[in-house]
Amino acid sequence: MSFKLSRRKLIGSAFFLGSSALLGQIGLKSVYSSTWPSKYEKLNPQETAELTYAVWGKYLCGASIIYSIFEQLGQKIGEPYKSFPVDAFILLKGGMVGWGTLCGSLNSAAIVASLIIGQPQKDKPDYASLIASNLMYWYSNTNLPTFEPKCPKTDIKMPKTTSKSPLCHVSCGRWMKASGYPLASAQRLDRCARVSASVAYKLVEELNKYHEGLYNEPLQWNAQKAVGINAQFDCVDCHTHTIPSAPKLKS
Amino acid sequence: MSFKLSRRKLIGSAFFLGSSALLGQIGLKSVYSSTWPSKYEKLNPQETAELTYAVWGKYLCGASIIYSIFEQLGQKIGEPYKSFPVDAFILLKGGMVGWGTLCGSLNSAAIVASLIIGQPQKDKPDYASLIASNLMYWYSNTNLPTFEPKCPKTDIKMPKTTSKSPLCHVSCGRWMKASGYPLASAQRLDRCARVSASVAYKLVEELNKYHEGLYNEPLQWNAQKAVGINAQFDCVDCHTHTIPSAPKLKS
Repeated sequence: MSFKLSRRKLIGSAFFLGSSALLGQIGLKSVYSSTWPSKYEKLNPQETAELTYAVWGKYLCGASIIYSIFEQLGQKIGEPYKSFPVDAFILLKGGMVGWGTLCGSLNSAAIVASLIIGQPQKDKPDYASLIASNLMYWYSNTNLPTFEPKCPKTDIKMPKTTSKSPLCHVSCGRWMKASGYPLASAQRLDRCARVSASVAYKLVEELNKYHEGLYNEPLQWNAQKAVGINAQFDCVDCHTHTIPSAPKLKS
Repeated sequence: MSFKLSRRKLIGSAFFLGSSALLGQIGLKSVYSSTWPSKYEKLNPQETAELTYAVWGKYLCGASIIYSIFEQLGQKIGEPYKSFPVDAFILLKGGMVGWGTLCGSLNSAAIVASLIIGQPQKDKPDYASLIASNLMYWYSNTNLPTFEPKCPKTDIKMPKTTSKSPLCHVSCGRWMKASGYPLASAQRLDRCARVSASVAYKLVEELNKYHEGLYNEPLQWNAQKAVGINAQFDCVDCHTHTIPSAPKLKS
């Protein structure tokens, strides 16, 4: 099954069915480099988390996970990891340049999974999407940060909070409310560095399982099926009065 | 001014000030390839939008803008555009694998801007972040889609809506409510293909201005300064009862 077919199936629509000819005309070709997806070697989750935490001051949530994983794989394997433009992803920080949307740790972790695993193979699950989606589910339902650094950057007893959301705004906001620390405080930055390290730890666990053929988690959240719109699972967090019903396809 | 210093300034914190020595120990080095950021040549916004629209059936919102811009620059310039792993970004679709968070068009457009422009230079604005952030502001405040294709994939009179948000869930949701079309309909897919094309058009306009030294827009939304938390600007869209105040730094 080609990628195009599997996407169509996923979307459940014959949209653009007539596009093949047009795509040929405009010279569409796969620009997916022959070097990606690349070989992977098992990494140590704890060491990856410590490295993520250590470099967070430079790479922030947007790129610290990409750095920590690709730096190690670059040393073990070389290219294409060594020349990947990690710095360009720093701007994913703060839910994309401070807009508080998707947590930069989750955004970058999903991109790492996709770069390493590549596109869905015939008769196999879309592992990259599965791991990325389940990581968002885990993040939203876990008391974070789970990671405790060997050399903490602040000396507070770190409060932990469950975001119930993959959004930076909600994740940071719940922690700020629980802790009383402001956005620009060293403690909040330390919290988010530990969250990035926690996500890096979990991602490496999943990539290691995938690498050994042991990743067999079902999809934890399927918004399109559940609510008929791209969405997170906690509707009432924003829809406090009434939850609108999404229009349905006529059968 | 080094990147590290400018980020610190931005964050307004001395967090990780002591990390330089540690970073040296663990062998931190820039993994930013010498090929990125790369040379840029002016593109035609309309042609880029048409190409984005044409390939959307394969690349979706997550990667169609990256494909359309890098395919053209690959033809004009060559590497590093030709070997960039565009396919890996398809999973940004639907606000990251269907979670409805950051619109895939905005996520990918920001990454394109960052890859092309690179990190902030001494005494100059952080143009990549500025363009990415202002693109999110424009998207949230514009009646979308603005792009009208030469060869539409559906024959509806396309409804236009203003999302007041960079989130896929809100952007799609408002359009679905206004139009009555469900998520899996050809019409909704056509709408999102036109939104991606609209964003591609706007992005190319901004990149062309930047390339000619003519980009001088001020930052339209600064959440940290305005509300003390990473956030979008429309608080009451979710906080219907009361808007919590973010904790403040003690002076």
